[in-house]
Amino acid sequence: MTRSFLHRLRVRYSECDPQGVVFNAHFTYFDVALTELWREAIGPYAAMTEAGTDMVIAEARARYLAPARFDDVLEIAVAPTHLGTTALTTGIEVRLDGDSLVEGEMRHVFVDTATHRERPIPDDVRRALEPYVSAPPAPRREEAPAP
Amino acid sequence: MTRSFLHRLRVRYSECDPQGVVFNAHFTYFDVALTELWREAIGPYAAMTEAGTDMVIAEARARYLAPARFDDVLEIAVAPTHLGTTALTTGIEVRLDGDSLVEGEMRHVFVDTATHRERPIPDDVRRALEPYVSAPPAPRREEAPAP
Amino acid sequence: MTRSFLHRLRVRYSECDPQGVVFNAHFTYFDVALTELWREAIGPYAAMTEAGTDMVIAEARARYLAPARFDDVLEIAVAPTHLGTTALTTGIEVRLDGDSLVEGEMRHVFVDTATHRERPIPDDVRRALEPYVSAPPAPRREEAPAP
Amino acid sequence: MTRSFLHRLRVRYSECDPQGVVFNAHFTYFDVALTELWREAIGPYAAMTEAGTDMVIAEARARYLAPARFDDVLEIAVAPTHLGTTALTTGIEVRLDGDSLVEGEMRHVFVDTATHRERPIPDDVRRALEPYVSAPPAPRREEAPAP
Repeated sequence: MTRSFLHRLRVRYSECDPQGVVFNAHFTYFDVALTELWREAIGPYAAMTEAGTDMVIAEARARYLAPARFDDVLEIAVAPTHLGTTALTTGIEVRLDGDSLVEGEMRHVFVDTATHRERPIPDDVRRALEPYVSAPPAPRREEAPAP
Repeated sequence: MTRSFLHRLRVRYSECDPQGVVFNAHFTYFDVALTELWREAIGPYAAMTEAGTDMVIAEARARYLAPARFDDVLEIAVAPTHLGTTALTTGIEVRLDGDSLVEGEMRHVFVDTATHRERPIPDDVRRALEPYVSAPPAPRREEAPAP
Repeated sequence: MTRSFLHRLRVRYSECDPQGVVFNAHFTYFDVALTELWREAIGPYAAMTEAGTDMVIAEARARYLAPARFDDVLEIAVAPTHLGTTALTTGIEVRLDGDSLVEGEMRHVFVDTATHRERPIPDDVRRALEPYVSAPPAPRREEAPAP
Repeated sequence: MTRSFLHRLRVRYSECDPQGVVFNAHFTYFDVALTELWREAIGPYAAMTEAGTDMVIAEARARYLAPARFDDVLEIAVAPTHLGTTALTTGIEVRLDGDSLVEGEMRHVFVDTATHRERPIPDDVRRALEPYVSAPPAPRREEAPAP
């Protein structure tokens, strides 16, 4: 059975823009939540970088369904959706009181911290993340260029 | 003939992370560049909001091809790729010395500032942006879930 | 006896700069901690703004004694040091494992949300904060222009 | 005669908070302006770090006199006010249309990039900054704890 992971955080005033909603902090939230999944599944992120491996972001996307506001306490569901040879794809959902505010995805590539070249996902990382891998949210909405 | 628009900015130290590269500032850069396209094509963004219309972000995506670093002077090419009834899709390319660092896209929806309901793109905005509309970059790289 | 207040937070990767230390996020941390003191002493900050009063920052200062790094769990001690007629002075200390990393101070002025004019601190806010008021850290180090 | 230095920048939407004014970006602006003074007086900041010297922030303060808003074009006057043995004090004034919005000061300490120990200001840096040194703004307003 797939393990699920949820990180909870509170929206900061400095993360909100003049419309009163979270501006560009969502990708920071994605990263915060992935760091916390790491801590639960593997341990502190720094252990991997000290061992010579790091991740770099290769792709990020988000669909904004509803705004988040100052002092909202958000739940961020994080789940690896694909463990490739050198890349990790992670699905993210930001929720407020059960409603989905943002659906997103990040793809990271593993690199050698010395050479910055791509390298395979370390075995211990792979094993630790595998229990969390889930299929991406199924009936994927068509990402048409909009009305 | 399509008008093109380019905004140039310099990477700030506070926008770089411990890897020494721009972290999550890219989406801020996207927004800065769109604001500048607005200024060239239409005028200050605030004129539209004072007239009762605003834009909210509906979707954002980015592919990171190479890192940007402190003090890099980046060129950000911005082009509307689709003017729908209530939505604007914008293609973005962040470049350094002719190399593409980031390819991205944002989709905004126009809303009434009072009701927050979707509303058609104002006519003056549509007319002003039309000369800049270009086809999205053609042989779109396959967005496979990675190696 | 003075009530004390402590807020704990974890340093985010996006808040660290190429030196690997927290860059300019400290003033954001100050604000986050003040918001949490508010929640404990008074309630959600928004209740005050909805009632027609807001605070604006008038002065901020910080002395950086040691750096904070990614994934550090910081403790932020917050204490009002002066409740004036229209202004609130707050002392802040950011600590890591008992060591002081940052000593700071913020001064906010209360304003009417409609007119933006200064107004007296609301009585309920004053009463709620009074138990937390403490003298500023005593043998204030001379702030000489440095060696 | 003292050389003066002015950096001009435009306020970004993401730097404004729900009050519609610049939130905590001012200290980022300070840093941006100091980087630009460096470029004019000395060259790219990276030249110094590659030569083994860096600066760390030791103290920062700001007095907020009036808010800055989205799309404002600010002028930031930067002037070293004290060149010590190992420390540099810099005065900053953020202005809009001739009005002072923020008066601030930063104190940086020079360190060896390898050992992180304090070291004297490099001679070339000292010589290059000396022409810009000016007395701090004279009849310094009393920083009373406010009304």
